[in-house]
Amino acid sequence: MVLKNIIQEAYHKVNSIDDKGQLASYIPELVNVDSESFGVYISTIDHVNFGIGNCHDKFSIQSIAKVLSLSLAYSILGEKIWSRLGVEPSGTAFNSLVQLEVDNGIPRNPFINAGAIVISDILLSHLKNPKDDFLAFVRTISNNSELNYSTKIATSEKAVGYRNIALCNFIKSFNNIENDPSEVLDFYFDLCSLEMSCKELTEVFLFLANNGYNNNDNSTIVTKSQSKRINALMQTCGFYDESGEFAFKVGLPGKSGVGGGIIAIHPNQYVIAVWSPKLNKKGNSYKGMRFLEEFTTKSELSIF
Amino acid sequence: MVLKNIIQEAYHKVNSIDDKGQLASYIPELVNVDSESFGVYISTIDHVNFGIGNCHDKFSIQSIAKVLSLSLAYSILGEKIWSRLGVEPSGTAFNSLVQLEVDNGIPRNPFINAGAIVISDILLSHLKNPKDDFLAFVRTISNNSELNYSTKIATSEKAVGYRNIALCNFIKSFNNIENDPSEVLDFYFDLCSLEMSCKELTEVFLFLANNGYNNNDNSTIVTKSQSKRINALMQTCGFYDESGEFAFKVGLPGKSGVGGGIIAIHPNQYVIAVWSPKLNKKGNSYKGMRFLEEFTTKSELSIF
Amino acid sequence: MVLKNIIQEAYHKVNSIDDKGQLASYIPELVNVDSESFGVYISTIDHVNFGIGNCHDKFSIQSIAKVLSLSLAYSILGEKIWSRLGVEPSGTAFNSLVQLEVDNGIPRNPFINAGAIVISDILLSHLKNPKDDFLAFVRTISNNSELNYSTKIATSEKAVGYRNIALCNFIKSFNNIENDPSEVLDFYFDLCSLEMSCKELTEVFLFLANNGYNNNDNSTIVTKSQSKRINALMQTCGFYDESGEFAFKVGLPGKSGVGGGIIAIHPNQYVIAVWSPKLNKKGNSYKGMRFLEEFTTKSELSIF
Amino acid sequence: MVLKNIIQEAYHKVNSIDDKGQLASYIPELVNVDSESFGVYISTIDHVNFGIGNCHDKFSIQSIAKVLSLSLAYSILGEKIWSRLGVEPSGTAFNSLVQLEVDNGIPRNPFINAGAIVISDILLSHLKNPKDDFLAFVRTISNNSELNYSTKIATSEKAVGYRNIALCNFIKSFNNIENDPSEVLDFYFDLCSLEMSCKELTEVFLFLANNGYNNNDNSTIVTKSQSKRINALMQTCGFYDESGEFAFKVGLPGKSGVGGGIIAIHPNQYVIAVWSPKLNKKGNSYKGMRFLEEFTTKSELSIF
Repeated sequence: MVLKNIIQEAYHKVNSIDDKGQLASYIPELVNVDSESFGVYISTIDHVNFGIGNCHDKFSIQSIAKVLSLSLAYSILGEKIWSRLGVEPSGTAFNSLVQLEVDNGIPRNPFINAGAIVISDILLSHLKNPKDDFLAFVRTISNNSELNYSTKIATSEKAVGYRNIALCNFIKSFNNIENDPSEVLDFYFDLCSLEMSCKELTEVFLFLANNGYNNNDNSTIVTKSQSKRINALMQTCGFYDESGEFAFKVGLPGKSGVGGGIIAIHPNQYVIAVWSPKLNKKGNSYKGMRFLEEFTTKSELSIF
Repeated sequence: MVLKNIIQEAYHKVNSIDDKGQLASYIPELVNVDSESFGVYISTIDHVNFGIGNCHDKFSIQSIAKVLSLSLAYSILGEKIWSRLGVEPSGTAFNSLVQLEVDNGIPRNPFINAGAIVISDILLSHLKNPKDDFLAFVRTISNNSELNYSTKIATSEKAVGYRNIALCNFIKSFNNIENDPSEVLDFYFDLCSLEMSCKELTEVFLFLANNGYNNNDNSTIVTKSQSKRINALMQTCGFYDESGEFAFKVGLPGKSGVGGGIIAIHPNQYVIAVWSPKLNKKGNSYKGMRFLEEFTTKSELSIF
Repeated sequence: MVLKNIIQEAYHKVNSIDDKGQLASYIPELVNVDSESFGVYISTIDHVNFGIGNCHDKFSIQSIAKVLSLSLAYSILGEKIWSRLGVEPSGTAFNSLVQLEVDNGIPRNPFINAGAIVISDILLSHLKNPKDDFLAFVRTISNNSELNYSTKIATSEKAVGYRNIALCNFIKSFNNIENDPSEVLDFYFDLCSLEMSCKELTEVFLFLANNGYNNNDNSTIVTKSQSKRINALMQTCGFYDESGEFAFKVGLPGKSGVGGGIIAIHPNQYVIAVWSPKLNKKGNSYKGMRFLEEFTTKSELSIF
Repeated sequence: MVLKNIIQEAYHKVNSIDDKGQLASYIPELVNVDSESFGVYISTIDHVNFGIGNCHDKFSIQSIAKVLSLSLAYSILGEKIWSRLGVEPSGTAFNSLVQLEVDNGIPRNPFINAGAIVISDILLSHLKNPKDDFLAFVRTISNNSELNYSTKIATSEKAVGYRNIALCNFIKSFNNIENDPSEVLDFYFDLCSLEMSCKELTEVFLFLANNGYNNNDNSTIVTKSQSKRINALMQTCGFYDESGEFAFKVGLPGKSGVGGGIIAIHPNQYVIAVWSPKLNKKGNSYKGMRFLEEFTTKSELSIF
């Protein structure tokens, strides 16, 4: 199988490179991982699966969970969700608070923290038992009842999440948060604490390579149009101020997390998940970015 | 032919909508067009061609020319071109000068004015007769010797181009312009004054749907990798602060101009050009955006 | 007495003007005042005192209290206080969060909310019973044991103080808050809830017209150098983004509050306090600003 | 004489300090000065005059000239001048272009470059022979026919003034420049090239310590109200983003230039001029700032 060979070759090439990245330091608990871990897993809609390295080790998916909370909220509210937040790249990380001020509390997109906090607020208003219901959603779409939050990680982040408290209260001051800020943040930190392996990530995200359908039972998770739009959003906004670079070098919609995970989606073809915990200066996995660039260059499988 | 039917249907639907756009006012000469014009043309790499409405009328392509100047400069310098400018979306139009200040004169991407001015400076340093050589490039790749600049438009813009003069001198103050600012701007205004019809636009841009190859003689205009990367840049940065919206609603790499033209590219499949001169509030063709949204929704042919 | 005549004349002239201001709306409790109130009181270091209008009615002094908390903190820590915040005008109100981000959590001056919150944090770290000790300080310098906080106002502001919660947590994320943010804010909201009349305000603030000495018993409240510097800070930063305008039109160091109060100080001469609750667009008392302009123009008693 | 002793003492103390400043580098010609120069001159309205060090050496007064062009324009147009620019501090140097964008081409005050360029434009519209007429104004108020521009300095700055060209054209794009940008800039660079000694500077600026009257013949140069307002503007905006620091530490209205000169005014008392060409990080004379701090601390003669 060609894909398998390309993955193996790219994996070994990147694994031999000196990793210049740094472990995320802002969540204390995140430093307690093996910094040399490096795993890759791919799942195609034709049921081809292949993994290498630490592809079965669980890690904190962090911001990758923002795609899942958006998917659930989008499936519940449809297009009217966009009255609460935008679909534009935010320029630089540095600008996020500036732009909230300029845009009167409307986050620019669902993948910056401000936007994900608004999505959490929406889910809080629409779910009966938000924490349980969201977990049930993730377990159902992946047919994997073992997925779970990490209380340790959530607690660790809550203890130092001053900037997110600032963001949430700032948005609340513009009346774009309906619930109590501390409840919104609690739920938000729980979402980000989801733990999965690369293999499990591809099982969860395969619906976005499959036009919104569950690849097992063909049920609709989000509509075809919503699936395309979520992918478009990942393409333009998935990597903070490195989104352009990722589109440019990798050429696939994707999303990263500060735990060192990245998922990338080739619509109608496959999902690939990479994990390596040391991050580059923009906060994305150093080896993960390098691997995906190598992979799409070799496979010539980008969407462009 | 299905494509033809979809285009006809979308064209008539959008043409019947009340056009809420406004003619561009900042270049005096641009108001002298028939504001009701509306044309569409598609060319596939399989040599299918189809047009409707004012698809044979020439108009000022303005910023669409930035893709062509980038293509020529990129083919000459290769990747080292990115030491002079970035590949990230700029956030908002409103931020462009701010970000130049923060980023020390390095424009965020080649499609904001600042970036296109730097590209003009690069071409000025590398071409013998910049104005003639660039025109020759455009004529060659489209096999159309009738393409030309509009002296009227260029002169009209030069007379009021204070903001671009400001941008160019500002970048020069950071040492990121090599040539005399007034020469750089002269060349820049000439580039933007290129005139073409929708049909001609598709002939010029077909190479970006064809992995960088000329669809007629198979010669290499830019490399396959460069072609993919130019498309990725159009996807993330082609519509100023409406780039996310375009990716979200249309789902194709594209580029707009204040003359009311838009090109969009489906890699490995086709180029589509739309022209309607009244602009929405973000400076993109009102009907053009609506048409392309309708078109990709109906055809389900987005890249996502 | 000349001063008395000038004050009477200016008072009646301004009182007859149509008041275009608006009551502050962001603290619910603040709207429960008589919007037509208008009082003025002056105290000179030569023991001349004169008042007019509602000069004996108590009102919420709000941000005017920031001068008092600064004075106490400055007298305790001396110049090393400036490692925690700056002495520069902040440009515009609109920029405050931006500049915190650019300046890594160091507020530009002690009179914007961010700066006053840092001062509250400092007092919290240095006072045994912060709330009681601060009140004792204010009572002592004015020899007025009836001064007090308003629980109603403090509670009202705490219930909607999302933006200040955002500010405090944002600064905490830069490690420039030592205590628990909710305790800092509690104390901050208490400070701002102090209630006084114009007459009482002049008694409290007379030390700043008297080189830092208590005008009754000649004890040192702050040093002469500190007194001059606090006055300089009021001159450049006392009126948010209307500080330049106040220096320009009134020409005295001063400080305003959203309760509609303003104090102004003529070093070595007098303190004048004005109160009228309707605010102009920049958040300063409409009649208060007009009165002080009239007063210093007529008296020619500005410091310039 | 006490003043004389204080000046001598402060001069020697500061002169013995290691000067950590740097010569201005952005105007090539400015580096051709003796970097160790250090002069001080004071003139009181009671005709006391005293100088020390290089107080008779001429140097490029640069931005100090902005106070003179403002004075002339203000005396011609009166208050309606403020429809073209503001009276607020600009926050940080870094913000100037940002704020022009936010404020639609209205500079925040007459002492940032943007504001001084607008003042130049105003003079250009109102003077018959702008360059000659302005020089005549400066010579008349100081009764010194030997004052002159430096062609060398003006030419040197014109050759590299890209950032000012950017500013002027940017303001023009907002319709806040009436004349041709290149003529406005020519005049602006001429103004800034004025050369004087510390002694001559005090003669030119004595009117601002004298309520707008010429101290020799008692003629009105600007009105008393205008004089107070110009002083207020110097207090809040005279030192770019070190204006607060200067008010805080020195406590006098003043203006600096990148040639290393500073003037400071004590209304109703004196003008003091200092010159030392090495600049601190904010672009103000390192020794000059230190001297004035020492001087007002020792003399206790600040306005606060």
